[in-house]
Amino acid sequence: MTNKSDRSSNNALWGHKWGYADTSLKINEDRSVIMTGDRYALSGYKMPYLIPYIEELLDIKIELKDVLEEVKQAYITPPNCNADFTQAIADLFPAHQYSFEDSERLLHSHGQTTFEEVHKVLYSQLERLVDMVFYCESTADAQKLIELAIKYDVCLVPFGGGTSVSCALKLPLTETRAIVSVDMKRMNRLEWIDRENLRACFQAGITGKQLEAELRQHGFVCGHEPDSLELSTLGGWIATNASGMKKNRYGNIEQIVENITLLTPTGVIEQIAPTPRASMGMQLQNLLFGNEGNLGLIIQAVIKIHPLPQVTKYGSLIFPNFDLGVKFLYEVAHSGFIPASIRLVDNNQFRFGQALKPKSSSILAYLDKLKKFYVLKLRGFDPQQMVAATIVMEGAAEEVAYQQTNIYALAKKFQGLATGATNGQRGYMLTYAIAYLRDFLSSYYITGETFETSVPWSEIQQVCNAVAQQLQELHRQYNLPGKPYLSYRISQSYHTGVCIYFMFAVYIKGVEHPEVICGQIEHSLRQTIIANGGSISHHHGVGKIRQDFMKDTLSPASIELLRQIKKASDPQNIFGVRNNILAESDI
Amino acid sequence: MTNKSDRSSNNALWGHKWGYADTSLKINEDRSVIMTGDRYALSGYKMPYLIPYIEELLDIKIELKDVLEEVKQAYITPPNCNADFTQAIADLFPAHQYSFEDSERLLHSHGQTTFEEVHKVLYSQLERLVDMVFYCESTADAQKLIELAIKYDVCLVPFGGGTSVSCALKLPLTETRAIVSVDMKRMNRLEWIDRENLRACFQAGITGKQLEAELRQHGFVCGHEPDSLELSTLGGWIATNASGMKKNRYGNIEQIVENITLLTPTGVIEQIAPTPRASMGMQLQNLLFGNEGNLGLIIQAVIKIHPLPQVTKYGSLIFPNFDLGVKFLYEVAHSGFIPASIRLVDNNQFRFGQALKPKSSSILAYLDKLKKFYVLKLRGFDPQQMVAATIVMEGAAEEVAYQQTNIYALAKKFQGLATGATNGQRGYMLTYAIAYLRDFLSSYYITGETFETSVPWSEIQQVCNAVAQQLQELHRQYNLPGKPYLSYRISQSYHTGVCIYFMFAVYIKGVEHPEVICGQIEHSLRQTIIANGGSISHHHGVGKIRQDFMKDTLSPASIELLRQIKKASDPQNIFGVRNNILAESDI
Repeated sequence: MTNKSDRSSNNALWGHKWGYADTSLKINEDRSVIMTGDRYALSGYKMPYLIPYIEELLDIKIELKDVLEEVKQAYITPPNCNADFTQAIADLFPAHQYSFEDSERLLHSHGQTTFEEVHKVLYSQLERLVDMVFYCESTADAQKLIELAIKYDVCLVPFGGGTSVSCALKLPLTETRAIVSVDMKRMNRLEWIDRENLRACFQAGITGKQLEAELRQHGFVCGHEPDSLELSTLGGWIATNASGMKKNRYGNIEQIVENITLLTPTGVIEQIAPTPRASMGMQLQNLLFGNEGNLGLIIQAVIKIHPLPQVTKYGSLIFPNFDLGVKFLYEVAHSGFIPASIRLVDNNQFRFGQALKPKSSSILAYLDKLKKFYVLKLRGFDPQQMVAATIVMEGAAEEVAYQQTNIYALAKKFQGLATGATNGQRGYMLTYAIAYLRDFLSSYYITGETFETSVPWSEIQQVCNAVAQQLQELHRQYNLPGKPYLSYRISQSYHTGVCIYFMFAVYIKGVEHPEVICGQIEHSLRQTIIANGGSISHHHGVGKIRQDFMKDTLSPASIELLRQIKKASDPQNIFGVRNNILAESDI
Repeated sequence: MTNKSDRSSNNALWGHKWGYADTSLKINEDRSVIMTGDRYALSGYKMPYLIPYIEELLDIKIELKDVLEEVKQAYITPPNCNADFTQAIADLFPAHQYSFEDSERLLHSHGQTTFEEVHKVLYSQLERLVDMVFYCESTADAQKLIELAIKYDVCLVPFGGGTSVSCALKLPLTETRAIVSVDMKRMNRLEWIDRENLRACFQAGITGKQLEAELRQHGFVCGHEPDSLELSTLGGWIATNASGMKKNRYGNIEQIVENITLLTPTGVIEQIAPTPRASMGMQLQNLLFGNEGNLGLIIQAVIKIHPLPQVTKYGSLIFPNFDLGVKFLYEVAHSGFIPASIRLVDNNQFRFGQALKPKSSSILAYLDKLKKFYVLKLRGFDPQQMVAATIVMEGAAEEVAYQQTNIYALAKKFQGLATGATNGQRGYMLTYAIAYLRDFLSSYYITGETFETSVPWSEIQQVCNAVAQQLQELHRQYNLPGKPYLSYRISQSYHTGVCIYFMFAVYIKGVEHPEVICGQIEHSLRQTIIANGGSISHHHGVGKIRQDFMKDTLSPASIELLRQIKKASDPQNIFGVRNNILAESDI
């Protein structure tokens, strides 16, 4: 399986697994783990505690030589070409703008949902692939492509960073037309920047990393930081209704974007000009967030930008238990000193973070022991109960100082103990490494998934407990080896509730059809979340893995009206990827 | 003309003019003005400077005895009854739930748009009236009513506080079906309150005043404060995409509401449960803001609530000129100490505020003179140039202190001079009196209008200058007597721009068809605003007076898709009030 791409511009040798080709995890002979490259906080040092920690948690023994074999050469069905359409494309576009190559087709036929997609690509096979990949380079290209798709009845699937974790890129098995993946990443230009009004217009295929680099050159920042920042695109953020780590300061995507240009088969959806908040009848722009590729191609967007912050400061705290941490978060969320980001990780995730640390040198080890003694003995923290909060404060110096003073003062009320900026920063750095860890573990028969929800404050504990209990129950029912692993963090706070981000893992060695079982576990856990007051998703979106739960989310007439909107905008179902409200058989 | 209503519960003897029957303005024999009652900061004292100020500004002479006569008995066309529908209503509902009386019909056939509506009701006549008024008391009532409307092909027009200033309640002349005004104000109950998650569910007909009173009993506040707060309703706020004075702290309506229940002819639009921010595909809920009655009846909504603030503090500042004031506002808007509200009034509005003051007693007059000396002579402020900012700070004591310190420190950078809390508070109190003033002046042949827009920071001065110039030009073209009056304030700040709220007045004594001319002036000024970078509306909405400008606001395909959404939701056009995207002739 090759990591192949034309995305040299973003320096990402991007493949079927998550992220950059220079970065992966390996086990050394001494059973320590190392992350290759030098991209991340985890890169380049030995982690001696990781394997023992995983073995303890899952109650398994990892055999270094026993790895799950990746598919050497996937069986790839030949493309289902629409000859007239293909001819028309060849007549209009140069060869470097389209491809029928197997490797390109495979690369564009999946996202990063472990069970359904990554597992199939690496260890089994995908049922349906796109038949052609088209590299869109301009609005005119996109317009022409849509025209041809209408004329020759071809299905188009917008493709950004390919980082979907909701099977939004999974192709409908019942689709008999040729399917063209429309890769938007060559449309990555800054169109204009408006320094006084603090906004900029970007083409939609730009990745978060490129976008921030571009803005930084002008002295600005957008501040939208989803965990997929390096790979995901502006268009993808809009299509999934994305959330960023620092949303308290910069907003989630729907608060950042001021105008979207969407090409549909029936015309261009956009405002004539971006405006600050306005009252202009029903605001169609607001409906475009979360369209998940159902409506058309997002070509460009105007976003809010901010001068680079004077100060960025990290912080961290520990609390004796999760409940006290939640109470602290509640007060911060309703205070006048909300930091750019504040997260609370549960005990499992806290210990997981510890397990990723290097072996301490002797003097550091001594200080570490002293610290531990202070925390555990003098302050009475139980290592099996304690949790940690990480904080990012950003802004003018006095603003950050005001936040810091108040946050730490408040923490004391909940027995919080400050644990320093380094631990805080480290916590955020780990975020970018999680997907690599997931891919690494899967080769040792450990498969898992991240899933998230939004939930009212009062239901946090209820949802977490119910998910933990249900996972235990499913693990027993499916007779899986070892023990299941669950951890969670509160990654965002809102006025009425929070986002909880869960991770679970199970050991699947010797298990038949693990991808099916894991899919069923994910589905069952979502059911548990919703039954206990959580939402269908906070920011991953619905895609196809959560379609079943739309009926628990919206009234029947709401769903029907959304389907009518799709029909009105795209009567021929050119954008036939069929996410969220659209089932396989629809339209 | 009687002020008649069944709204005893909100204590508003509500009529064709704005507001409460106990409050109006009168000129005394000594040419001072007094506001009756004791509701407002302006009530109960003599204002000796108002008439001279107006006379000077408009270059006219007001004759006390020469008042424009209100219509004594408007000619009211008999109701266009649909006999079968009427019978069905009579069979199902008690008599107090519907009315064919002329006074009720008239009351429900207009909003508060001066030229188009108030002027016609008071001094001329309305072309089209509703044929029946239905008082909705429950969701079941609403459902039944819609069923009957479908069955008998009747047009329904939702009616909340009746405070629309966009002709949203103006009835289409081409409507041949019976039109029923659906008065929602009896649906004014608090359904539930969730203290921990800080949200509450209210029926949509509750007025702002009732809603805040209800919440206050539980120790909470919603904080949504449009100028129409006393009269307008929750459902109306959603329908117009309303904005509140303290939006910096509490949000505009789209940030306050977490779930809307809308009854349409094709079913109930709602989320199954309110959730904090979520990603669930295209969010139909977001589309409902600004529907302006086109889609259905808003029955109830879940809103965010807040504990009562520890502290509310007013403040005020003066600046040598508007430009410096705008620069100050820009820095505040991008700072970490944004107060709940901050406004900047231009020189005309500042002086208008001064003209509403009482005659100072001798010692106060002396102090006033001293103050003036300090400001004008020592600090070199030009009385024809200086402007004022008013501020509301709300929250915990330390938060308010932090805002206050930083705001006043920043103001110095722009030659700002603190002018005390009293002036600040007074500035906000005037807000509620403006509509009474408008009605008062209109009886002396002075007619005017308020109109607003959102505009990028860089275009503020351009838009204001262009509007002033165009008003001069139109005044000349129409050969109107005296001089035109224009004033404006920046009432809201956003990251990328502001809301500018304009008021204009002209003297129309001896002018033929003043309502036509004034309508043309309003239309032309809106054109000027849009041509210079402003939006169609910040919070008044589109209704009918701004329909012409939808094409300057949205792409053709956007408008067409919105029309298709309406068609899908209401194929028979039961909700046929035809605002924003729908023309007289549509559907």
